[in-house]
Amino acid sequence: MNSVWNGAGRRIHLQEVGTRDGLQAEDVFVPTEDKIALVDALSEAGLAKIEVTAFVSPKAIPALRDAEQVLREIRRAPGVIYSALVPNVRGAERAIESRADELNLVMSASESHNLSNLRMTREQSFAGLAEVARAARGAGVRVNISLSCSFGCPMEGEVPLSTVLDWCGRYVEELGAEGVTLCDTTGMAFPTHVAGLTRAFRDRWPGTELTLHFHNTRGMALSNVLASIDAGADRFDASFGGIGGCPYAPGASGNACTEEIAHALDLMGYDTGIDLPRLIAAAARLPGLIGHDIPSQIVKAGRRLDLHPRPGDFEEIRARALGR
Amino acid sequence: MNSVWNGAGRRIHLQEVGTRDGLQAEDVFVPTEDKIALVDALSEAGLAKIEVTAFVSPKAIPALRDAEQVLREIRRAPGVIYSALVPNVRGAERAIESRADELNLVMSASESHNLSNLRMTREQSFAGLAEVARAARGAGVRVNISLSCSFGCPMEGEVPLSTVLDWCGRYVEELGAEGVTLCDTTGMAFPTHVAGLTRAFRDRWPGTELTLHFHNTRGMALSNVLASIDAGADRFDASFGGIGGCPYAPGASGNACTEEIAHALDLMGYDTGIDLPRLIAAAARLPGLIGHDIPSQIVKAGRRLDLHPRPGDFEEIRARALGR
Repeated sequence: MNSVWNGAGRRIHLQEVGTRDGLQAEDVFVPTEDKIALVDALSEAGLAKIEVTAFVSPKAIPALRDAEQVLREIRRAPGVIYSALVPNVRGAERAIESRADELNLVMSASESHNLSNLRMTREQSFAGLAEVARAARGAGVRVNISLSCSFGCPMEGEVPLSTVLDWCGRYVEELGAEGVTLCDTTGMAFPTHVAGLTRAFRDRWPGTELTLHFHNTRGMALSNVLASIDAGADRFDASFGGIGGCPYAPGASGNACTEEIAHALDLMGYDTGIDLPRLIAAAARLPGLIGHDIPSQIVKAGRRLDLHPRPGDFEEIRARALGR
Repeated sequence: MNSVWNGAGRRIHLQEVGTRDGLQAEDVFVPTEDKIALVDALSEAGLAKIEVTAFVSPKAIPALRDAEQVLREIRRAPGVIYSALVPNVRGAERAIESRADELNLVMSASESHNLSNLRMTREQSFAGLAEVARAARGAGVRVNISLSCSFGCPMEGEVPLSTVLDWCGRYVEELGAEGVTLCDTTGMAFPTHVAGLTRAFRDRWPGTELTLHFHNTRGMALSNVLASIDAGADRFDASFGGIGGCPYAPGASGNACTEEIAHALDLMGYDTGIDLPRLIAAAARLPGLIGHDIPSQIVKAGRRLDLHPRPGDFEEIRARALGR
């Protein structure tokens, strides 16, 4: 059976964004040594890439004001790519000094979203990204560009496929980006759309690393991952514990949860490289550090074959039934 | 594109179980007139079948002690099948008197689960079901049999495919059941397994109505629905608001959420017959009736294209950006 329902050992790369995308949304400051321990635990859990932190203004995001120290003091596992989000050249310089393997740059496919979030037009953002990409190239550091609202904008609605592909083309062909991430910023992606956009990207830029970044806001994250795999993708962002992802609606989920995606893909026979018990243990530390419950259904319910004991009086029940 | 990712107008039947499977798990007694109003709202929302209530001992499940009145006083929409769960011949008689279109009988594919929950061996349960099926047949009422733990048992672990198919064979061939529901009682189903079991059932009993009943305990409900559709199924149980489903783990989701499944399938181009705004409105009444939050991500986040306003100072942001 060669279908998406049977992984048959195919390699899927899971990329962790929780220590950046998750922790930046928290009110509490997670102590630096705990952040480092979390990243080290994620390295040991087999993530292919870890977006460790963001080099942004400490005033704007105090939760990540220890970016340098975290990125410098983590234990680097061979083969794992340690990336950092950077908003501008100053951030890029800090990240490069702290030995980031990859810089992740962000803009939005939607003009309204880009203006609202970044206070620039998309063209202004692109010009900024080009500067950062030049700095990265000078330092021999990889560049990935994350395109928010690739599957729809919460203010504008539909974002045309052609708009998304036009921006991707400029990242790959003008900036020479090694990777592009199509982000479902507010959980608007659905499988039909995802399959179409994934296939269009793969057909045009087969040599570019493509990541899909889904949110589970409307319960479609795993199905979107599967539709995307079926259309040729093999690389996904997710957040341990399901933390972060700026949900628009109170109580709604944000980022796809790494252990939920890994648990499902492992059962389906994909090779995620993930050590699930280690990953679940890392996620289970989060509530104590951030002070609230986390969305992860796997932390709550356990793995599929984590069994429950029979009732204490099971043998009596059986004896009574058989005695009828 | 003729793939599972593109529904292309294919009909999928969604069957509501919330007023039975959901409300029976609640501590509060939802007033009879509210139950009737909920069922009427679900009829108007386009569900293909509604499991209205259960004819069980009022002492065992006081929340459903008004089964007769509810089933008699709902407004019956043409084409909708109104079913009731019955545990025994006494329940069947009460349900038939109250004009149930279909009786839903339950046992488990796992001996440990059957004993723990029903206090009978599976063979004893089967003998009871046979009696109920005879009573239903005498009254010209349809019979559906729901097989718990079809995708695994929380105490025993794996339940072999052959065990599940053997029981299905006895329901179809010995009891003449019109329908069989394969239940994922504690969220152990995963797409590979689901596709295999669905295809095996469809190949053997093409004339029998097959329903899949998934739980979202480990985040796989929608993906399981899609795997099952790809393997030939077109009929799914779900619970509005995502209520009920006896989650084993505190805080974990239970039943697949009707409006989440309908929302995704509608976007993918399937014909669910569901009027989503009406269904969401019905689910949104639940917290007020049952006194707590509900798992539904669609009630929380809204539909994909329920847009959000731009920031109040958006025009100033734009003017400032363009003035640079």
